[in-house]
Amino acid sequence: MVEVTISVEGMSCGHCKAAVEGALSKLDGVAKAEVNLAAKNVTVQYENGKVTEDALKNEIEEAGYDVV
Amino acid sequence: MVEVTISVEGMSCGHCKAAVEGALSKLDGVAKAEVNLAAKNVTVQYENGKVTEDALKNEIEEAGYDVV
Repeated sequence: MVEVTISVEGMSCGHCKAAVEGALSKLDGVAKAEVNLAAKNVTVQYENGKVTEDALKNEIEEAGYDVV
Repeated sequence: MVEVTISVEGMSCGHCKAAVEGALSKLDGVAKAEVNLAAKNVTVQYENGKVTEDALKNEIEEAGYDVV
């Protein structure tokens, strides 16, 4: 299991938190996704080989937020 | 039909806009509810007698936002 923290712009409220966590959690290989609104980031635990950091970032962008 | 604009704190994104508009629109007597995020308010058209301004404000508070 790998853990990565990705900086994300544009998450402003609990709905945004849920949207990003939900989008990441539905990816096969993602075990946990937790947004920290104050820190403007999301920490993701995932199985290396099943999903890549690039795939996580794409998913965040597709949910409507900017990876920085 | 009556139109009122109510100032609301805490609406930060499109999800918040949809949450407030959805909560108000489901009230019987509300014809239209439109949030302006930049102006921090919601403009509501409603049938007088069917619903009151107080009921609109209660609904906004119940959705988790502060009427100011």
